[in-house]
Amino acid sequence: AGHGARKMEDYGRFLALLASTLLVGFVSVILSLVWVFHYREGLSWDGGAGEFNWHPVLVITGFVFIQGIAIIVYRLPWTWKCSKLLMKFIHAGLNTIAMILAIVSLVAVFEFHNAKNIPNMYSLHSWIGLTAVIFYSLQLLLGFAVFLLPFAPVHLRVALMPIHVYSGLTIFATVIATALMGITEKLIFALKNPAYSASPPEATLVNCLGLLLVLFGSLILWMASRPHWKRPPAENAKILRPIGATPEGTEAESTMTNSINADKSDPRSNTEAARKQNMKFDEAGQRSTM
Amino acid sequence: AGHGARKMEDYGRFLALLASTLLVGFVSVILSLVWVFHYREGLSWDGGAGEFNWHPVLVITGFVFIQGIAIIVYRLPWTWKCSKLLMKFIHAGLNTIAMILAIVSLVAVFEFHNAKNIPNMYSLHSWIGLTAVIFYSLQLLLGFAVFLLPFAPVHLRVALMPIHVYSGLTIFATVIATALMGITEKLIFALKNPAYSASPPEATLVNCLGLLLVLFGSLILWMASRPHWKRPPAENAKILRPIGATPEGTEAESTMTNSINADKSDPRSNTEAARKQNMKFDEAGQRSTM
Repeated sequence: AGHGARKMEDYGRFLALLASTLLVGFVSVILSLVWVFHYREGLSWDGGAGEFNWHPVLVITGFVFIQGIAIIVYRLPWTWKCSKLLMKFIHAGLNTIAMILAIVSLVAVFEFHNAKNIPNMYSLHSWIGLTAVIFYSLQLLLGFAVFLLPFAPVHLRVALMPIHVYSGLTIFATVIATALMGITEKLIFALKNPAYSASPPEATLVNCLGLLLVLFGSLILWMASRPHWKRPPAENAKILRPIGATPEGTEAESTMTNSINADKSDPRSNTEAARKQNMKFDEAGQRSTM
Repeated sequence: AGHGARKMEDYGRFLALLASTLLVGFVSVILSLVWVFHYREGLSWDGGAGEFNWHPVLVITGFVFIQGIAIIVYRLPWTWKCSKLLMKFIHAGLNTIAMILAIVSLVAVFEFHNAKNIPNMYSLHSWIGLTAVIFYSLQLLLGFAVFLLPFAPVHLRVALMPIHVYSGLTIFATVIATALMGITEKLIFALKNPAYSASPPEATLVNCLGLLLVLFGSLILWMASRPHWKRPPAENAKILRPIGATPEGTEAESTMTNSINADKSDPRSNTEAARKQNMKFDEAGQRSTM
């Protein structure tokens, strides 16, 4: 009963954190719309300021909010009864939507620049932003080829999973940093009389939006890096998996996680024998969810 | 012999990555000096532009480079024979130097603003930057009180270590994001005729500096989150530690690390019995390095 209560408490803590994260992300999207509609020229697709405005709205909605949700989608406890394959489709699908919105947001800003004869790709914001979009596309492509399609051998999945998780989280953090640079640029360029330095209401609102983006990113990274909130491995995988079947998932899903239980749980874990045994289980412990 | 070769290869890979990280950090510091001395007004302490210039130089040297080294200092294999306590002093010492440099860099920019009647604290850069300095100071204070002083009970150290690691890495990433915003601001304000958008050599140089900061941060985060590069627990801690001695270190050092070996190494690890056993070892597996 004591353990059950602790488990419920932890579940409650996860839900509270998830609700806060969703709220912060949702308010960020709303603030980007308030910014664009109340203080700027709204949304349009005519080469004018209204077309530029799609850029922050789509980046915050897609490249920040939806990408953030895609990152933590495996952690939602009520999805643990769903097949791993279904969850992979949802993870890949959300990331694909985020990528499409990010690309449309790039088209908007390039068309705006070209219509107004503003140079493209001169700022640090544009350099890092384009790099992030390219790496994000590569990440999606590689993730699709290695983890979703059934062709990659298990040892390749196991080898690439830590890199997939690391680069996913690093790209996500870089996207938020790029958004903060974009906000800085736009407020300096757009606010004249009163200038940004006079702190008009628009500056305060958009600074708050920037703070919320940092908070959203921090919450996502916290949830993604807690080991006890990981999707548990399929309990009966070893029994159910036919010998020679293509393993569809690996248990190497999350690598930026707490190793408290790793290196301390077993006094053997630092001996050579244990290391070899671990490697055997690495190979054997693949789960099938097909 | 096969295992020894693999170990040497991994050691070589760590050294190559460390050398690259140090090179990228070192070049970043050099580029900040080239920026300030070749393109700007150099360094001085008279309320003029030369005083402002301490701000980027000290932030990049202290708050980015030295903080980055402080983060990975436990990972250097040749320090593993040193006592844990000595390494904690080095970790805390480097972070203290970084904090002092960050605070001096803030004084420089506030004095410059006041001398030139430029408002303080209006930009998103200043909001997030000041927040990062405050959190960094709290992190240092809390780290000192809990992990360095011998008063905190083991269960508190174990409970706070994942938070310490998470907030350390998150603050580090936020500092780099803030530096990118600062670069963006400074290039927009300082470059007139030719403007930033005309991509003069200074703009290209400082954009490259920004890219190097992102690369430096990514390399540090990669090294800090690889579980097999962690400082190994003291092998004979359990034998040597006198019963009732104050445990000086915990093995919960690194929490943003790979759990491949955690959840797969042992088929029991998802059962209740194993969880309870883990908790026992959590308590028992403390090392003494005093």
